[in-house]
Amino acid sequence: MAEIGVGMLGYAFMGKAHSNAYRTIEYLTWPPPLVPKLVGIAGRNEQAVDEAATRYGYEYATTDWRDLVADERIGLFDNGGPNSLHAEPTIAAAEAGKHVLCEKPLGRTATESYDVWQRVAATGVKHLCGFNYRFVPGVRLARELIEEGRLGEIRHFRARYLQDWGDDPTLDTWRFHPDEAGSGALGDLGTHVIDLARYLVGELASVSGLVKTFVEGRQVDDALEAAVEFESGAVGTIEATRLALGRRNAFQWEINGSEGSLYFDMERMNELQVFRADGDDRVRGFRSVLVTESKHPFMEHWWPPGHIVGWGDTFIHEAYHLLKAIAEDGDVEPHGATFEDGYRASEIAEAIVRSSAVGRRETLSFRTL
Amino acid sequence: MAEIGVGMLGYAFMGKAHSNAYRTIEYLTWPPPLVPKLVGIAGRNEQAVDEAATRYGYEYATTDWRDLVADERIGLFDNGGPNSLHAEPTIAAAEAGKHVLCEKPLGRTATESYDVWQRVAATGVKHLCGFNYRFVPGVRLARELIEEGRLGEIRHFRARYLQDWGDDPTLDTWRFHPDEAGSGALGDLGTHVIDLARYLVGELASVSGLVKTFVEGRQVDDALEAAVEFESGAVGTIEATRLALGRRNAFQWEINGSEGSLYFDMERMNELQVFRADGDDRVRGFRSVLVTESKHPFMEHWWPPGHIVGWGDTFIHEAYHLLKAIAEDGDVEPHGATFEDGYRASEIAEAIVRSSAVGRRETLSFRTL
Amino acid sequence: MAEIGVGMLGYAFMGKAHSNAYRTIEYLTWPPPLVPKLVGIAGRNEQAVDEAATRYGYEYATTDWRDLVADERIGLFDNGGPNSLHAEPTIAAAEAGKHVLCEKPLGRTATESYDVWQRVAATGVKHLCGFNYRFVPGVRLARELIEEGRLGEIRHFRARYLQDWGDDPTLDTWRFHPDEAGSGALGDLGTHVIDLARYLVGELASVSGLVKTFVEGRQVDDALEAAVEFESGAVGTIEATRLALGRRNAFQWEINGSEGSLYFDMERMNELQVFRADGDDRVRGFRSVLVTESKHPFMEHWWPPGHIVGWGDTFIHEAYHLLKAIAEDGDVEPHGATFEDGYRASEIAEAIVRSSAVGRRETLSFRTL
Amino acid sequence: MAEIGVGMLGYAFMGKAHSNAYRTIEYLTWPPPLVPKLVGIAGRNEQAVDEAATRYGYEYATTDWRDLVADERIGLFDNGGPNSLHAEPTIAAAEAGKHVLCEKPLGRTATESYDVWQRVAATGVKHLCGFNYRFVPGVRLARELIEEGRLGEIRHFRARYLQDWGDDPTLDTWRFHPDEAGSGALGDLGTHVIDLARYLVGELASVSGLVKTFVEGRQVDDALEAAVEFESGAVGTIEATRLALGRRNAFQWEINGSEGSLYFDMERMNELQVFRADGDDRVRGFRSVLVTESKHPFMEHWWPPGHIVGWGDTFIHEAYHLLKAIAEDGDVEPHGATFEDGYRASEIAEAIVRSSAVGRRETLSFRTL
Repeated sequence: MAEIGVGMLGYAFMGKAHSNAYRTIEYLTWPPPLVPKLVGIAGRNEQAVDEAATRYGYEYATTDWRDLVADERIGLFDNGGPNSLHAEPTIAAAEAGKHVLCEKPLGRTATESYDVWQRVAATGVKHLCGFNYRFVPGVRLARELIEEGRLGEIRHFRARYLQDWGDDPTLDTWRFHPDEAGSGALGDLGTHVIDLARYLVGELASVSGLVKTFVEGRQVDDALEAAVEFESGAVGTIEATRLALGRRNAFQWEINGSEGSLYFDMERMNELQVFRADGDDRVRGFRSVLVTESKHPFMEHWWPPGHIVGWGDTFIHEAYHLLKAIAEDGDVEPHGATFEDGYRASEIAEAIVRSSAVGRRETLSFRTL
Repeated sequence: MAEIGVGMLGYAFMGKAHSNAYRTIEYLTWPPPLVPKLVGIAGRNEQAVDEAATRYGYEYATTDWRDLVADERIGLFDNGGPNSLHAEPTIAAAEAGKHVLCEKPLGRTATESYDVWQRVAATGVKHLCGFNYRFVPGVRLARELIEEGRLGEIRHFRARYLQDWGDDPTLDTWRFHPDEAGSGALGDLGTHVIDLARYLVGELASVSGLVKTFVEGRQVDDALEAAVEFESGAVGTIEATRLALGRRNAFQWEINGSEGSLYFDMERMNELQVFRADGDDRVRGFRSVLVTESKHPFMEHWWPPGHIVGWGDTFIHEAYHLLKAIAEDGDVEPHGATFEDGYRASEIAEAIVRSSAVGRRETLSFRTL
Repeated sequence: MAEIGVGMLGYAFMGKAHSNAYRTIEYLTWPPPLVPKLVGIAGRNEQAVDEAATRYGYEYATTDWRDLVADERIGLFDNGGPNSLHAEPTIAAAEAGKHVLCEKPLGRTATESYDVWQRVAATGVKHLCGFNYRFVPGVRLARELIEEGRLGEIRHFRARYLQDWGDDPTLDTWRFHPDEAGSGALGDLGTHVIDLARYLVGELASVSGLVKTFVEGRQVDDALEAAVEFESGAVGTIEATRLALGRRNAFQWEINGSEGSLYFDMERMNELQVFRADGDDRVRGFRSVLVTESKHPFMEHWWPPGHIVGWGDTFIHEAYHLLKAIAEDGDVEPHGATFEDGYRASEIAEAIVRSSAVGRRETLSFRTL
Repeated sequence: MAEIGVGMLGYAFMGKAHSNAYRTIEYLTWPPPLVPKLVGIAGRNEQAVDEAATRYGYEYATTDWRDLVADERIGLFDNGGPNSLHAEPTIAAAEAGKHVLCEKPLGRTATESYDVWQRVAATGVKHLCGFNYRFVPGVRLARELIEEGRLGEIRHFRARYLQDWGDDPTLDTWRFHPDEAGSGALGDLGTHVIDLARYLVGELASVSGLVKTFVEGRQVDDALEAAVEFESGAVGTIEATRLALGRRNAFQWEINGSEGSLYFDMERMNELQVFRADGDDRVRGFRSVLVTESKHPFMEHWWPPGHIVGWGDTFIHEAYHLLKAIAEDGDVEPHGATFEDGYRASEIAEAIVRSSAVGRRETLSFRTL
């Protein structure tokens, strides 16, 4: 079987999730499109990155990501580092001819994101921005149902990504530093919401936003609220917060169309609630669909019906998707988020910030290559 | 026991709900503050109003509401008619010295609502605007918990009132006629959301809204979306639609504070989800509280714990509240919505419309007497 | 409109629920089959029964139920007294030519229940045993779906009635005295489960039971567990307890057939979960049906879709059903439980006790008239 | 790091789940107690077992499990084959000095299970019976809460394992052949229920059972129902079926104690419902605990709070547990099921069958070594 060398930047949360994907994909997705070989891993803390290399099986560790860029055995560069380390290494890797996977948000600003997209697109490599929730089986199923027209014309999308770990004024992490993170809940959670809005409903046309910091001394936003309109005319809301006590990872969204509705909550990520206006009013109601049937997306890789997958497994689906595109020279879109999708999410996020600052609805426009 | 004569305008949905309240209050809320006597009922359709009088036990029916205003036996005028019949009869009844209950929205416009409030307040009678959801046990419990500080400082309020009966282009009702209804989902559902926002979290400071009509030829709005800020600094969303297929009466709201959170769905109106950050992380989670305990609001009127009440029963709680205020010359506020609350809801609703039209965040200001 | 005089035995929990039904039925179920007139109410505590007469509007109160039996204006005798007062007054009333409604369990023993049935049946009056959960909209809908064959052949019925108020060793009530109550959770909750089993699935063939008292010094059972078989061959479980902490009124049941399944929980009594094997595996799942549509059972008496009814409203449906049978000289069965149903529930309950005592499966047989 | 050679019998459902555990454990549980080396895999279908060896990375494949027993590099023999292949290979491997993991049910009969236990125990190797649901985080948390006394004295355990794949008369699998499977739903699902009953509540004292086959021509049971008593005096039910349409993997159980209650459903395996009688009646209710906190069992191996694990991950926890016991020469019990637990589950399963056949409650007694 054909192999591909992987170079990983980042060894913490994302480093673990991605490495697990590369290690399992060769037997869980059978036959694998390409067999990943873990070549090198880079990180800033020498001891930690050394341990990560041992733990996950990378041939070597380095504190200089440029070593990965220079390594000819590496065909795929995976960037799971802090946001401030997204642009330069990703561009360098692509310009060195490596395919690239970069975690979201693509850049800290729309300009930075655009720059990454533009520079990487020019190289011709495959690029995927790590909006992994596209690879939740229930999300892909939602997309399929919508594409088949089973919801009719979409009228509403309302989504909120609720976490509560930000409610600790003593906590410090790069995610609270504007220079490293770019923004707070907006870049971390809000871009996930924006990306799924675009993936499921289509391009956004305008946003009216409020961005807010509650915790004293915090330099990034804690929360955002936005009323939004899509190009199609659908309207809805986009919300994200790190201060919704009791919600740990509640990315909840509802879509209403002229023929049916969908509801989803990431804390129950194996379920999709489906309503269809089918005329049988005596048994009308949302169906609680356990998205584990053999016909369901990604389930050919897993277990018999009823046996659920976990959050980390979305990265396996994502990596499989990218490796398949590489192996077959196919497209990352529409089911994978490209760097253009990454850029657009940044552009929309910034429009929410501007709208909040000036008190006006912002009409969206996007740069092209 | 002291009695009070009731004159009812309207015999349909609200006429039934209110009449049932007046008939049952004398034994369900024991001892009753005042015993309602059903004196007269008014409506535009002679045959229908005659039948309603027979059915509910009113002494007489009339097609002219002025007969009720002129009837000295009537001490409480209850206006459950279409929105276009709210202002004039309610003002006339109050000026004739009758206490008044008027269904929401108070008027079709903020100006009309202000006028009703100002004219009625000048008479000194008790006035209550029919935001009956304040009288859901779980909503009152939420208010109590918030007042006691058990949620800490409120950061978020996100609410949506979702129905789907508007998805029928052939349907005709006064609710679709601007002159009779004033607006669509906004006045019908949106004002309920606005009122609970104010009741539970406090006054709103600004709104950024989108108002939308989807059904061709419809002359009132089908849906609205708004990002809102409260005077306290809390932020959130207000949404209402008649086109959320599968949602029949889903008035859902969530409140996040610095000490805990609440979640509620009117389709499960006997439940309140309560999260408290109490340090016991191994069993952290939202509690599903069945609001039927003897210590819960309104439950002294009902059954042993676990035996739920129905939607119609909120009107019993509401009527009891008003009759008690009348009997004891007490205040309708804070738990009852006064006409000032009715006016403010209208003012906020109009600000959402203006914001939608001009694409700007609207800062709220309210007229005083 | 034709009227019927009502005599009520009992003024507490059931007295309130039944009186409310008689007072509201004349306008909620329109046109009413008969208009109930509240003639007399009987109870053992003179002061309490006097107050109840005033509260609910009975013409008189008495501490001797024989006064009701002797009153010719009374056409319907409603027995909501303690179990020890079910047999004699009910028989006497029927033999005086009055129609009778008796709360469950019909008697304290199968023999007593049989006696009531046999004696009352001989008089030719209408008789209904107060298994009010047959009159929950979702339960009636379940029956309709089953009758239409939409579940196919029934294979399983598993039901449990869970409460927790029994977990207080200091509590005293007639419900804990064997001579007054006959049994504990068995007669109080278990008979409800048995009755719905029979109503929804058909007659039981055998039971293997365990009956248990946990609270020290308590003289009646706290809980029962039974594995059961139906005449049709379906198998399942029947459980009831007053010691399921956190469950207030959780009468939960599930039915599995060869074409579909149903699930119900009384704490969410307006919902019925419906699964249909319809071949569309991508959206297979239980539907959460809010049983408030205009086509749903009993809903012609109530509100628009989505506006739920309460626990107390089941008594309105039940009383309506009985009054209709009286007015039209129709049958109480199949949707109302007759005294034969009351007797059979007692027979089955006793078989569970016997099975528990002797450690054998008990095959059921029923006496006939 | 110390290594251990693994020999795997079975390449299908269990073969995949177990192999995945051995491949990921070395980096997900860090540092791993032992690093598994995949030495050999055995199966009856040569082509399939060859592919499995390639896929999962075993050094060789064989159609004769004796090759694994004879291989000195193998220190752990994992038996995921059909039930008819549990006894002989497992005993042989243990007698060859290998530690053994055997899928449930241990044997096809209680006698066979006893034999396996007795023969293996005599060798002194570590033995674990694959009741993997003990390794669900919520199940382990339940055990911890119970052990700490937070539920008080347990009064009830009611559990049902519901699947629906058996509803296909054309389906053929070894699971329907008595000689290969031993029994149907009983051995497959019922033993899981029995094991958790024992793990969470304690030893069973007696069972009254009904065992049933619905599908024509099927030679094993489709379903079982049992009323059970524990040695502690707690009572409850044990149920299992392959014919509960709409339930895919619904292993649901509830435990009620004198201080609180727990509820769990495997289809939402990351949640545990927890009720505690803590005196605060205004917010009493079951908490929906997402068992993903850092303090929760097994979560040190995974992601930040709110990011759920999947069904397959239970095998990682199970394998980790066994490898730790091997590495440290520690005990498999109490958290792992030993072969004694496997034997006892079989003994209880057979008692249910006997009880069903003879119509008597069966008092349990267990053989000892």
